[in-house]
Amino acid sequence: MTRFNYRITLAYDGSEYEGWQMQQGDAPTIQLALSRALARIDGAPVIVHGAGRTDAGVHAEGQVASFRLARQRDGAELRRALNGNLPEDIRVIEAAPAEVDFHARFSARSKTYRYQIYTAEVMNPFLRRYSWHYPYALDTARMYEDSRALLGRRDFSAFTVAASEARSHVRTITGIEIDVQGPMLRLTFTGDGFLRYMVRTIVGALVEADRGRLKAGSLAKLLETGDRALVGASAPARGLTMVKVEY
Amino acid sequence: MTRFNYRITLAYDGSEYEGWQMQQGDAPTIQLALSRALARIDGAPVIVHGAGRTDAGVHAEGQVASFRLARQRDGAELRRALNGNLPEDIRVIEAAPAEVDFHARFSARSKTYRYQIYTAEVMNPFLRRYSWHYPYALDTARMYEDSRALLGRRDFSAFTVAASEARSHVRTITGIEIDVQGPMLRLTFTGDGFLRYMVRTIVGALVEADRGRLKAGSLAKLLETGDRALVGASAPARGLTMVKVEY
Repeated sequence: MTRFNYRITLAYDGSEYEGWQMQQGDAPTIQLALSRALARIDGAPVIVHGAGRTDAGVHAEGQVASFRLARQRDGAELRRALNGNLPEDIRVIEAAPAEVDFHARFSARSKTYRYQIYTAEVMNPFLRRYSWHYPYALDTARMYEDSRALLGRRDFSAFTVAASEARSHVRTITGIEIDVQGPMLRLTFTGDGFLRYMVRTIVGALVEADRGRLKAGSLAKLLETGDRALVGASAPARGLTMVKVEY
Repeated sequence: MTRFNYRITLAYDGSEYEGWQMQQGDAPTIQLALSRALARIDGAPVIVHGAGRTDAGVHAEGQVASFRLARQRDGAELRRALNGNLPEDIRVIEAAPAEVDFHARFSARSKTYRYQIYTAEVMNPFLRRYSWHYPYALDTARMYEDSRALLGRRDFSAFTVAASEARSHVRTITGIEIDVQGPMLRLTFTGDGFLRYMVRTIVGALVEADRGRLKAGSLAKLLETGDRALVGASAPARGLTMVKVEY
């Protein structure tokens, strides 16, 4: 049976989900919500591939997914059908037919994530689901300097989980930007791929280093040793958003 | 017993609340959450007065409340104690001792509300709790023109509920601004006071008028007749935020 390949771009508020990936049982995940909506539309089970597996509580402005359908469909029609069958906190921004060999994960060339830290003493209740409340002064110029050590092709073993499923821990980060607007700090990371917890562990380490509390001493040292025991706690999931994927 | 008067400024995400005002039973309201937190801090029941009674689902960036405590307290200490005893979606931004005759509601001179309308075809999931999704083109220049009829001292009988408890329906609106950023429309209203549902009914009428569907023909006509039957549906609560109160 010929099946037609599609690509969609998604935004979601991850607050109420156990992350992207389908799990045993009925845990609410983005992948499960999409699979169910597509099954209703296409009339048969659909396997959905995401560009990146966001963790529980992590958000997306530009996640990309691909899947094959039994019936051919117009992009705008598919987008409307999906939005009509998805919960309000998951929205399909764009849907279109894709090349036969397009795969959201394997075809991706680069990904961009943003991490938000809110540093005012009192949290803004409208930002509580979308940023880490860290009510202390941070030296952003110093954080920026520290972060330079992470640029380029590096082994990020110190920045992922022990049980990482990735065959290699080598990734290339092409950009890290830090932007400050009042009490809000935004760190933007672009690279060819990110290991599990990698962005949140980098953010945690940059903050610890700024406070002079990083056991390894510096980010450069951490990379060198590859020792996860020297890295501090990861920054919380709520501050992380997958911004875009490039192909 | 001498009691000490305090004034606080509050921000809250109203999504999970049945509005400001305490109700029969245990319905979650902002006033109830504050009263409970203050009772824990002060050791006795505390009556909290708010500048405005926001409805279910309506938000605040700068609601003001006043209350009397048995014990004298430092403003910053009171603010921290309150934030430690309140849910995350209600935050006290400022707390300070107030003049003995200060009353959040009766001392208020002017209030500002903002209403957000999101007009893109696909809703932004991060704005769904804070704006009305109205996916149609709106002629903002025309809406601005129409809104001029509401400025000044007017009888707003057509713009409130039949069972309004207010003795008079006369209010003075001193400013209505409309600001557009991409698909987001922000309408800001300033006045000496607003009747129940008044801002949301005005927004609903401005949108209906723009679509050529307002039974009364125009806002000016609506004001003149004072006939609630000629006004359309109110805009949804989620788009409304109480921005500030001036004294």
